[in-house]
Amino acid sequence: MNIDMYMPVQIVSGRGVLTDKAALLKRFGKKCMIVTGKTAAGQSGALDDLIKALESQEIAYEVYPKIKENPTTSSCYRAGEAARECGAKFLVGIGGGSVMDAAKAIALYTSHPELRDDSVYHRTYELNHIPVVLIGTTAGTGSEVTGVSVLTNCEGHKKSIKGHDCYASLAYCDPAYTFSLPYDITVSTALDAMAHATEGLFASTCSDYTRFIALRAIKTLWSELRRLSVSGTLPDEASRERIYYASIYAGLVINITGTCFPHTVGYVLTEDYGVPHGCACAAFTPTLMERAAKYDSEMFVDFYKVTGVTPEDYLAVIKKLTGPLAHIDESEAAGYKSRFEGDIGNFDRTPGGFTADDAVDVLAGL
Amino acid sequence: MNIDMYMPVQIVSGRGVLTDKAALLKRFGKKCMIVTGKTAAGQSGALDDLIKALESQEIAYEVYPKIKENPTTSSCYRAGEAARECGAKFLVGIGGGSVMDAAKAIALYTSHPELRDDSVYHRTYELNHIPVVLIGTTAGTGSEVTGVSVLTNCEGHKKSIKGHDCYASLAYCDPAYTFSLPYDITVSTALDAMAHATEGLFASTCSDYTRFIALRAIKTLWSELRRLSVSGTLPDEASRERIYYASIYAGLVINITGTCFPHTVGYVLTEDYGVPHGCACAAFTPTLMERAAKYDSEMFVDFYKVTGVTPEDYLAVIKKLTGPLAHIDESEAAGYKSRFEGDIGNFDRTPGGFTADDAVDVLAGL
Repeated sequence: MNIDMYMPVQIVSGRGVLTDKAALLKRFGKKCMIVTGKTAAGQSGALDDLIKALESQEIAYEVYPKIKENPTTSSCYRAGEAARECGAKFLVGIGGGSVMDAAKAIALYTSHPELRDDSVYHRTYELNHIPVVLIGTTAGTGSEVTGVSVLTNCEGHKKSIKGHDCYASLAYCDPAYTFSLPYDITVSTALDAMAHATEGLFASTCSDYTRFIALRAIKTLWSELRRLSVSGTLPDEASRERIYYASIYAGLVINITGTCFPHTVGYVLTEDYGVPHGCACAAFTPTLMERAAKYDSEMFVDFYKVTGVTPEDYLAVIKKLTGPLAHIDESEAAGYKSRFEGDIGNFDRTPGGFTADDAVDVLAGL
Repeated sequence: MNIDMYMPVQIVSGRGVLTDKAALLKRFGKKCMIVTGKTAAGQSGALDDLIKALESQEIAYEVYPKIKENPTTSSCYRAGEAARECGAKFLVGIGGGSVMDAAKAIALYTSHPELRDDSVYHRTYELNHIPVVLIGTTAGTGSEVTGVSVLTNCEGHKKSIKGHDCYASLAYCDPAYTFSLPYDITVSTALDAMAHATEGLFASTCSDYTRFIALRAIKTLWSELRRLSVSGTLPDEASRERIYYASIYAGLVINITGTCFPHTVGYVLTEDYGVPHGCACAAFTPTLMERAAKYDSEMFVDFYKVTGVTPEDYLAVIKKLTGPLAHIDESEAAGYKSRFEGDIGNFDRTPGGFTADDAVDVLAGL
């Protein structure tokens, strides 16, 4: 039994929290750069709320709305230059996982001009940097509460940076910012949260603390995902709120446990086949469940207790929600083998271990 | 539903964790002052382990073994002077709640020579200070993981300081340091943890997150306390380990929820009647339970679900464990009324609210 944890992010939550707790922004300084993608920050209402909150605290701001999905290290480097040029004392990231992960990296580039593009992967110690505030607009990534930033490197592959220097200082968690998400993004991001909670529960690194947080998330997410798979329609606000908080719980879990093989193998589907990240990872969770049943019956029993779902029913719901994914034949799959060789933590944490050959098999077996 | 939290302490745990993770000390600097009481640091084995860990990282140290139970602000001020004089870059507190709470305050006095004695209560903003590392040797306080330090002010009353500047940077949580505790301290500190978890669960500030952590702690603590009340003998190491981790969970809870009336009223028993802190607080938890049943049936049902205990049986076990407490007659109790007037958060959070008259009643009804 252990209860190791490190969660330095101040998490404040609830509808209207950005307005209610605007004063928390004051300690970060008089000027910020707001990092966003193209649309979510505006559509969700978060950008308007933030601007009002900043004005109430007499904090100046510039908006940097150029973050794309699966952000590259070089785009984050350029954003860091912009933050320096405008004299930002802190960053606020508003968006889904891509924007929030970018904001964490941009803070490093901002405070350390010597870092450039992929050199962020080679820093040898934790770096101080300007504070980051995060406001999530999807219910899945949990990036608000992790010390991880998944970037796309100069070779076009997703690769994460992590460490004590990859945490936000403050996260405003308002489920209302997820209420305008369309059905497909609602589903794919909820699947991402389910993958986080499931991979965290079954990871060899799961502790007593992460175990019951993961089960708390899984119980909620499973019931909401099943409902989504049956109705095929947008969830109501109460459901969305439950999904959002469950995604934060799932973030707390993987921040400690790390993920298992689905996240590593899933990146292939996202990078080369355009499959949304959540669908790509969740697609492999039924296989993870089978391995959990085989190698780690205790956690598997826990999972069954809170969901009451059999592996067959689970697979059916996931398949219905992800829809048809890529078809990868055996020789194509084999072409990825070299990517899965070497020391991959996500594989080591998987019940029973996981090899490059296993990864090729699951890709070909989709 | 909300999941607000702030827990910036890096928590590392497990038997032998100080030796295994000695390298974590390196980032704090080359010299530390070790803050301890008279005996626990040595008897528990923690001081020896710490010295070896510091030597392995080439960190110099001085030992300041002068912290007494229920530490006063002026004793912490003097310790801060000593830390400045010896050039400490960080503090390590080894002990129970008194020593750990003192270490948090000493860090403030060390870094801010302008603070003196009770002026620590009047600081108007959060202060930077030298880092604090905590190593607990009792299983109850949870002080390792709270941003609160309970001190005795110049008037002889217990009064806490709290804030973002009252957290440790790192806590080594090794249950083995509690294995040599005698029966009476084992019981009184476990009762303190039970009071924390119970007060946190029933507090109006209890959130979804704190609710299930509190229940996790209560389930363990109730079963261990009942066993202690029946056997009257020292628990085995596995039981001690469970109690220790439950005390950390209970600390995580009250760090967010705060406590209810038993902690405020309990201070009277400790200050004026010499009742150990844990017994003093736990003595009032049956009354808290009655109020919870009356005003807050949902959490009460939760409590009953994980413990299966009726209020009558609960009262009997608590009475057996605390033993005879102070007898306070009605006029004596009434003499305390002025202490309970004004804006007391612990009273406001109590189910149904709690008044100075209620406090007098429970003191007279012991």
